[in-house]
Amino acid sequence: MKVINLDHISAKPLLPEVKTVMIDAIEKDYHNPASQHKSGEEAAAALQQARAAVAGLLNCNTPKEIVFTSGGTESVNHAIKGVAMANEDKGKHIITSNIEHNAVIRSLRRLKASGFAVTSLPVDSGGRVNPQDVADAITKDTILVSIMHSNNETGTIQPIEEIGEITREKKVIFHSDAVDSVGVVPLDVQKLGVDLLSFASNTFYGPVGVGGLFIRRGTRIFPLLEGGVQENNKRAGAENLIGIIGTGKAAALALRNMDMRLTHLKALKAQLLTELPNFIDEYIVNTHPDNSLPNLMSISIKYIEGESVMLMLDDDNIAVSTRSACATGSLRASHVLLSLGLSHADAQGTLVLSFGIDNTEADITTFLKALKNVVTTLRDISPLYQKKVTEN
Amino acid sequence: MKVINLDHISAKPLLPEVKTVMIDAIEKDYHNPASQHKSGEEAAAALQQARAAVAGLLNCNTPKEIVFTSGGTESVNHAIKGVAMANEDKGKHIITSNIEHNAVIRSLRRLKASGFAVTSLPVDSGGRVNPQDVADAITKDTILVSIMHSNNETGTIQPIEEIGEITREKKVIFHSDAVDSVGVVPLDVQKLGVDLLSFASNTFYGPVGVGGLFIRRGTRIFPLLEGGVQENNKRAGAENLIGIIGTGKAAALALRNMDMRLTHLKALKAQLLTELPNFIDEYIVNTHPDNSLPNLMSISIKYIEGESVMLMLDDDNIAVSTRSACATGSLRASHVLLSLGLSHADAQGTLVLSFGIDNTEADITTFLKALKNVVTTLRDISPLYQKKVTEN
Repeated sequence: MKVINLDHISAKPLLPEVKTVMIDAIEKDYHNPASQHKSGEEAAAALQQARAAVAGLLNCNTPKEIVFTSGGTESVNHAIKGVAMANEDKGKHIITSNIEHNAVIRSLRRLKASGFAVTSLPVDSGGRVNPQDVADAITKDTILVSIMHSNNETGTIQPIEEIGEITREKKVIFHSDAVDSVGVVPLDVQKLGVDLLSFASNTFYGPVGVGGLFIRRGTRIFPLLEGGVQENNKRAGAENLIGIIGTGKAAALALRNMDMRLTHLKALKAQLLTELPNFIDEYIVNTHPDNSLPNLMSISIKYIEGESVMLMLDDDNIAVSTRSACATGSLRASHVLLSLGLSHADAQGTLVLSFGIDNTEADITTFLKALKNVVTTLRDISPLYQKKVTEN
Repeated sequence: MKVINLDHISAKPLLPEVKTVMIDAIEKDYHNPASQHKSGEEAAAALQQARAAVAGLLNCNTPKEIVFTSGGTESVNHAIKGVAMANEDKGKHIITSNIEHNAVIRSLRRLKASGFAVTSLPVDSGGRVNPQDVADAITKDTILVSIMHSNNETGTIQPIEEIGEITREKKVIFHSDAVDSVGVVPLDVQKLGVDLLSFASNTFYGPVGVGGLFIRRGTRIFPLLEGGVQENNKRAGAENLIGIIGTGKAAALALRNMDMRLTHLKALKAQLLTELPNFIDEYIVNTHPDNSLPNLMSISIKYIEGESVMLMLDDDNIAVSTRSACATGSLRASHVLLSLGLSHADAQGTLVLSFGIDNTEADITTFLKALKNVVTTLRDISPLYQKKVTEN
């Protein structure tokens, strides 16, 4: 049974070209890129090619600035903990925002337990950090600013360039968790002014469980995984070459097809935004109208629960989510939505709709029709909605 | 050109059955095992099946005691740093041995920098730790003992069961880096008495860049990668499902075919040991005669350099190594060999020969013939050897 996937933020399909190179890598049985004999040379060359492709996607100064990791979470943990450990002689203050992913939040919580101070900045109702707040929060003890590029629940994009200008001027290391942006929107680490940028391969239709960290040359950071001399001595452990080869191919395709994909995704998002009022009423759009990802939209539907909508749409073979898959099982309302000023009730009615290049106009139409039915059914049994109808 | 791989410690080929399930997983485009809708259920089931297979291989009490990681290095870093951070209120003393892998050494070096004390135990000339030394080294501040199961350069197996009895009695957490043992020799975490055991999938012909950590229920340990709630909240980050599925299949086959593989590998090792004196003279066997891996043998050939032997064998399309691939590029003599009491000169003449289930008797014969030629050629130009010949 075909499922319409409007939950690309949880998992994107692999591109056919990525599948081909990964299957080829599996068949090939590469030797260890670090081995001393010539069997390792082909593996080392494949690794280097993938690294160059990712460096190209991000406009790094050199491929050596890319460290492959096991995914966005490792990259974020490496960036935050690695900078903290390597720079604690300079100061123990870190600045972040209230809407970060749990990888950032929990890494910082661990550091707080060992004596670091963390300033967490609020966002406006559009979900954005004010760069001036960053400037104001920097003290002589500040060693790191970590602000995400785009939010995985609302799609809102932060003013990273403006923050980058501030951190450069104040000589504070700047990390951005760009796990939901890299390969989706054009990103240039030179323009952004970041020292560290975390990414995940699946965001650009590469394999899950692979990602990387851009580390600008000269950035003072310790490794998180220590042992061998892999990844230019920045990340120990034999590389997941099959996954990295898939990542390289996916990065090359993301760069080449960026404009085409953006056009397609923006059209789907525009369709959804335009047609939604023809199908349901009384909802809030949580996604910033201008500064947001082309492939994600968050809406809070009043009087009902997102969880129920998700489950009923699932019966219709439409996959959507209500929050980050990383937080599945948590019953608390999303800290991201509450930070935007949403009430607990409205936050509970939230759906995160994330499209991919494999979605079509017809998918959106099918979704809208199904959503209308689901919302009608749920509101019919919603005490909140009945109360409101009676009152009017 | 077919290469005879006698460097399985650096890289083992994937089993055909492992390739099949990995390719199938690539084709299938699994959704996120953590997603809320039913597309994720199949992924969650595949993940669970792989976890159960690995738990079966190690005789865990429950599959929940297995945490999948990005490989042996992550597992070791997780075990050591995670236990240290979670137990530093109890004490800051850790016991290890002089012959550990760099993942252990460097993780401990990091901890020393933040105030932990580390006792590193010597090994005897056979490369083994004396369990009594462990007992003697334990103080009221000791929170962790980390001793490897087998050494990746000599193949020597440590008396883990005996050490496990001591740590259980003294209520100290016990970690064993079993990266080169799991799936090669029968291992049972109950018998071994370990609380934590690190492993890597490629050791048992699964994919590189995947591994895991056995964490006995009730062991006090913090995650290394923090963020989402994956892996029972013990290791955040979307799982490398393709690699994990391959790992599960490889673990199931390792368990099923253990005896057959052992018979084959032991025969190859016996052949090598028996026939070697017919081809070269004046060498030292660094591998323990009884307590050692069936698939690894280290020899130090006098008067010549292992590096040169390796390169000349490479020209003959035979892959061997002189040390851990993780230490490639390092010019220093191996700390493992020096710990055995080898001289620097003898350590430089070391070859690590590691076989796999894909090797044949004919491979060993071809290697021995090539080795004889190489050793003769190198000794002809060796000043050390000429001096010795002249003196006699």
